[in-house]
Amino acid sequence: MTHAIIGSGAIGIFYGSMLIKAGEDVHFLLHNDYDYVREHGLKINSAIRESFNLPTIQAYNNTKDMPPCDYVFVCLKTTQNQKLLPQLLPPLLKDDTVVVLIQNGLGVENDVAEMFPTAQIAGGLAFISCNKIGPGEIYHLAHGDLSIGNFNVKNREKLETLKTIFTSQQISCIFSEDLPMLRWRKLLWNIPFNGMTVVLNAQTDKLMANEALVNLSKQLMEEVILGARACGVNLDPQLPEQMIPYTKAMAAYSPSMKLDYDYKRPMEIHYIYENPVRTAKEAGYYMSKVDMLSQQLQFIQEQQDKEK
Amino acid sequence: MTHAIIGSGAIGIFYGSMLIKAGEDVHFLLHNDYDYVREHGLKINSAIRESFNLPTIQAYNNTKDMPPCDYVFVCLKTTQNQKLLPQLLPPLLKDDTVVVLIQNGLGVENDVAEMFPTAQIAGGLAFISCNKIGPGEIYHLAHGDLSIGNFNVKNREKLETLKTIFTSQQISCIFSEDLPMLRWRKLLWNIPFNGMTVVLNAQTDKLMANEALVNLSKQLMEEVILGARACGVNLDPQLPEQMIPYTKAMAAYSPSMKLDYDYKRPMEIHYIYENPVRTAKEAGYYMSKVDMLSQQLQFIQEQQDKEK
Repeated sequence: MTHAIIGSGAIGIFYGSMLIKAGEDVHFLLHNDYDYVREHGLKINSAIRESFNLPTIQAYNNTKDMPPCDYVFVCLKTTQNQKLLPQLLPPLLKDDTVVVLIQNGLGVENDVAEMFPTAQIAGGLAFISCNKIGPGEIYHLAHGDLSIGNFNVKNREKLETLKTIFTSQQISCIFSEDLPMLRWRKLLWNIPFNGMTVVLNAQTDKLMANEALVNLSKQLMEEVILGARACGVNLDPQLPEQMIPYTKAMAAYSPSMKLDYDYKRPMEIHYIYENPVRTAKEAGYYMSKVDMLSQQLQFIQEQQDKEK
Repeated sequence: MTHAIIGSGAIGIFYGSMLIKAGEDVHFLLHNDYDYVREHGLKINSAIRESFNLPTIQAYNNTKDMPPCDYVFVCLKTTQNQKLLPQLLPPLLKDDTVVVLIQNGLGVENDVAEMFPTAQIAGGLAFISCNKIGPGEIYHLAHGDLSIGNFNVKNREKLETLKTIFTSQQISCIFSEDLPMLRWRKLLWNIPFNGMTVVLNAQTDKLMANEALVNLSKQLMEEVILGARACGVNLDPQLPEQMIPYTKAMAAYSPSMKLDYDYKRPMEIHYIYENPVRTAKEAGYYMSKVDMLSQQLQFIQEQQDKEK
């Protein structure tokens, strides 16, 4: 099987490398790191599994040079989708290509389906703690589970095949037809902690050491549960009570939006906040505090844009 | 009439000086500025009225040396009430002393009444833009209106007298028996802008230049209106629509809580946020976003306390 990896951040490198280890034919699109990676390959350091190098990989700086693939993994920040995907994707698509969007938030599949009405799309949710530490080099700290949810892929077997491939590499891979459930389940943690670490400019450990913030985090999760329910997704109402101690037990952590903020990259406010707030509101529930967090983030983003 | 001014910040100096100009017998309690003011007096600079000096005033560094007064104006930060008032007030109180709390927030009168069950108390709301720029020296930028609301003063004439005194100095002074109305009315502006300027570390002009923050400010005001209504206070629902352009038209402004934050002083979270949220909740309305702002401020306060 042929695979294209779009986006050479931590997620793209980690799952792309796992496909190579599984014997798959993997083609990487690179941008800034192209020259370096073409010469030095990829380096996967892991705290919890075998570290390894891939000295030579199939690297490209243009999708026009890449073959059409059976699978295309989109591992970009969602903030780049509108601008980049219309140009990047077409050369990679065959009739039966499956596009897997390993991205955060809600509604990414709908927007890509609007750009490519005949594309077969799935969503990927990475439950992983993994940082890019240099060009082509990542440090994998913990976890690695990948949940794949079907959006409009007709050939369900093609998604089951992915599960088999990743499982062969000890990646726990869940496949589900209920994509909204997977996306809301991930939002349950992402919504409180991505935004709060930015607005209060503090890592998760500091937030969890403050009683008011523990309460606020729970209330934000409770809103997400009610928002999801309005959209027909039933998350376990006990989850907030479980996720607070889980987050307290974590080492000091900067969620991806905090890293984007620190490195002055655009934040994924649209898909992680605006879309969930709007979708739940249209379904009948207004996530008031989540919206406030979204509004605060929009202000912070505008200030950062102005500084440039 | 004898007057004691407790607290030599901008508010205490401004209204105390106006009382002197009106020919009243005014006694100032000073702390850090005592030596300087005793030697140099007070200096009132104003952008909108006559500036003047008061080279010699009756200055004290201990209320035990002050006479019992007809009026005591408490112009401290509310964060100091619990710690300081039990010691400061007793020497100043006669049977018919009126204590006027020119302070922000909700519930200050109740707490002082608990400390001094027989005291006659009123609340004062200063609508003024005035900064302390040095020991005994203030810069008065705009406004100056003082609203006085009765809490438990039996002799209403004593409050009417204050109105006459201040009016003689072209201070627009409203007197009302509806203290909760006055306090909620001031909270309507204070709640969005005191907290948001701290959490987002930006003055009012920056907030008002951002569409998301304009919306959020309106929503916070709408919550305050509903919270007030639950408590039996009917504020004009058109007020948010009026206060946004009013705030947009203001020069870049740091509300008092932003100044407290910048100068690492304790913030008045308890009376400006926690009490209103609790009071409205007990009356049947939960101000969700206001509570979130309160929670964020509590976090910020705790971080600042830890730095000390």
